[in-house]
Amino acid sequence: MTTRRSLLVAAWAAPLAAAAPGLLPGTLARPALARPALAQPALAQPAPAPLVERREFSFQGYTTRGGAAIPAIRTGYQTLGTLNAAGDNAVLVTHFFSGNGHAFGRLQPDGPAGWWDAIIGPGRPIDTDRYFVIASDTMVNLNAPDRHTITTGPASVNPSTGRPWGMSFPVVSIRDFVEVQKRLLDHLKVRKLALVAGPSMGSLQAIEWAVAYPEMVERVMPVIGTGEMDAWMLGWLDLWASPIRTDLAWRNGDYYGQGREAPLRGLAEALKLVTLHSRDRGWARQFGRRPAEGQDPARRMQDRFAIEAALDAAAMARARLSDANSFLYLVRANQLFLGEHEGLDAALAKAGGRWLVLPSRGDRVFPAEYSDELVAALRRAGRPVAQAVLEGPQGHLEGVVAIAQAGEAIRDFLAR
Amino acid sequence: MTTRRSLLVAAWAAPLAAAAPGLLPGTLARPALARPALAQPALAQPAPAPLVERREFSFQGYTTRGGAAIPAIRTGYQTLGTLNAAGDNAVLVTHFFSGNGHAFGRLQPDGPAGWWDAIIGPGRPIDTDRYFVIASDTMVNLNAPDRHTITTGPASVNPSTGRPWGMSFPVVSIRDFVEVQKRLLDHLKVRKLALVAGPSMGSLQAIEWAVAYPEMVERVMPVIGTGEMDAWMLGWLDLWASPIRTDLAWRNGDYYGQGREAPLRGLAEALKLVTLHSRDRGWARQFGRRPAEGQDPARRMQDRFAIEAALDAAAMARARLSDANSFLYLVRANQLFLGEHEGLDAALAKAGGRWLVLPSRGDRVFPAEYSDELVAALRRAGRPVAQAVLEGPQGHLEGVVAIAQAGEAIRDFLAR
Repeated sequence: MTTRRSLLVAAWAAPLAAAAPGLLPGTLARPALARPALAQPALAQPAPAPLVERREFSFQGYTTRGGAAIPAIRTGYQTLGTLNAAGDNAVLVTHFFSGNGHAFGRLQPDGPAGWWDAIIGPGRPIDTDRYFVIASDTMVNLNAPDRHTITTGPASVNPSTGRPWGMSFPVVSIRDFVEVQKRLLDHLKVRKLALVAGPSMGSLQAIEWAVAYPEMVERVMPVIGTGEMDAWMLGWLDLWASPIRTDLAWRNGDYYGQGREAPLRGLAEALKLVTLHSRDRGWARQFGRRPAEGQDPARRMQDRFAIEAALDAAAMARARLSDANSFLYLVRANQLFLGEHEGLDAALAKAGGRWLVLPSRGDRVFPAEYSDELVAALRRAGRPVAQAVLEGPQGHLEGVVAIAQAGEAIRDFLAR
Repeated sequence: MTTRRSLLVAAWAAPLAAAAPGLLPGTLARPALARPALAQPALAQPAPAPLVERREFSFQGYTTRGGAAIPAIRTGYQTLGTLNAAGDNAVLVTHFFSGNGHAFGRLQPDGPAGWWDAIIGPGRPIDTDRYFVIASDTMVNLNAPDRHTITTGPASVNPSTGRPWGMSFPVVSIRDFVEVQKRLLDHLKVRKLALVAGPSMGSLQAIEWAVAYPEMVERVMPVIGTGEMDAWMLGWLDLWASPIRTDLAWRNGDYYGQGREAPLRGLAEALKLVTLHSRDRGWARQFGRRPAEGQDPARRMQDRFAIEAALDAAAMARARLSDANSFLYLVRANQLFLGEHEGLDAALAKAGGRWLVLPSRGDRVFPAEYSDELVAALRRAGRPVAQAVLEGPQGHLEGVVAIAQAGEAIRDFLAR
């Protein structure tokens, strides 16, 4: 099921590209590896992504940061490279809202590469000849229905009842994601993270890591992220989620039984919002002002423009492979970012590590000024920090599909 | 019904302020006239807004730009000042998405002032001692249920059937709005517009005016606007509308009959999107990361943050006074902006007038770069143009509630 997997892990990154690659003649259709290989200037052709194996880690008895008990936690993960004897050459890569831990490598020889493969691998900026790189699936992962994603969330079976948790699953936060990752790293005998890095929601995890376990984190790289989940962002995240709650098929999250219809319409509308919000006008330009084929929106109310029809089709295809309740739990987890602290300064006063912050200039989700403020706060906290700005027409998405442009900055950061 | 009216005309401008003024201790709660009166530096106290009277204009037999017949058109309007003998001292003020023609003055002595009252009136930048100022309600007006708004759209009765048009009402465009305004101006014996000006959707009408009737327009002032409705904006407008179509109570627009429930939930979600999108983080800051009163979102999935609860309550209050189908028709009218032309350059090649373009730096709906591009296109077309940038924490909304800051620029523009 290579194709299906490709769609799932492309996720937030590129649901449109995955569902309808022909629609995207521009930058999105260009594989990251086809860019001039900043990471490998000496090679004429970049090496193909190495094979990786998806594994499962599970443990019994987790108490959430909010105090609720979850009897069992399962999480999927993958690694590349070798942990040294000191256990201090590890890199943790954390994923975005709709992604999973397939951040690098290929699962099959002919399968797609992971979403940050351009910067992770032998000889690449995050060099797996030198580092032991780990990426895992978060709790409440959106791709719960995907057979390659292993997660614990509302779509999982509650062992006490034998039925899916639905909305009785406890609230979890980004910090809970970090706690589960910490158990995984302990299990793998990792003692230090040479780097924790991720885009978007991955950046929130990286920041929480540096605050929760400062002694364990040597370097932190938040990409297309924010140091503050302010009221404006709380409101936007809620608006992303609202089409799901508005869909009557959602039934307060009780839609898992046989014969019940999942709230696909609401989930698709939610995914459309995420898709457009995480892009910019440069990406949309490919559609122009064309009507959808054979349609006439200037004369018929039910007719559509090309971009509307493309978003509709891609979002519905993606919705069938996602879980609506998990979307709601992810929204809440993001809203609770650094929620255990009085504010960003109070949180960063506890943080460790040297930092490289990578905003995207055209970001509409986490506008670049939020990264500027994160950098200022890190300076106030006495943390060593550098910033480099991603450029390009794809808004927020630059931090996933065009991360190769930061290859040299990342290489330098790791060399210091 | 002064209070109800205030809620309706505040509209896109300030549904939250209107529905729950206590929630808004900051800039939104401050009436525009309480600002230092740039317009009236010699006066210690600005004069109260003059009384205006709402009138109706109607005519038989309109054919839309798309070729559909509408048997009768009704539109509400108001004027202030006196038209001179030459008929060339008129100013047309065009309203935003959720507004109506109550742009200036008061309808009752104790009633609220219109949404641009800060710059329109005796001695103000648009000086009604000198100009005859007109503002009318657009077709397919969102405030169709408001007794002070007079409009023709899907909520109007189709004389051929005796029942509301619903989704059988023809598609109309911003250019159709202009055509109806042209009939009104002809009726009023206006021969020239010394100025056509409006914020947001009003800016689109002003630009269409300059392109459609170049010989009639002396000055054009698009505020928080755009010269191009590109694919990214087409997509956003569609996302604004989608909660209405997702609401099963919408019934393809057939909800006007007795005993039928209007799609209030979907309309409220749509209004929440408009509300947050047209603001910026500075506005949201008042809510902080507080939970809604008595709620605990860190532990209970159904619980809300303060900003979520405030948006919910305000949007539902506003939805009860709006019409869902009209929202859909307004979206389409905006999407069709300049749709009869090959592109912005082709349109502006036909345009007349001198121009003052007023973007808001923090605008998230029509980002300021779109105004920069409009200015560049006007220069290419050989049009005299100046630009001044609105500053402030309220994003798009600055162009409505904080327009007083442009008072001197507008005064200078009219003096030239």
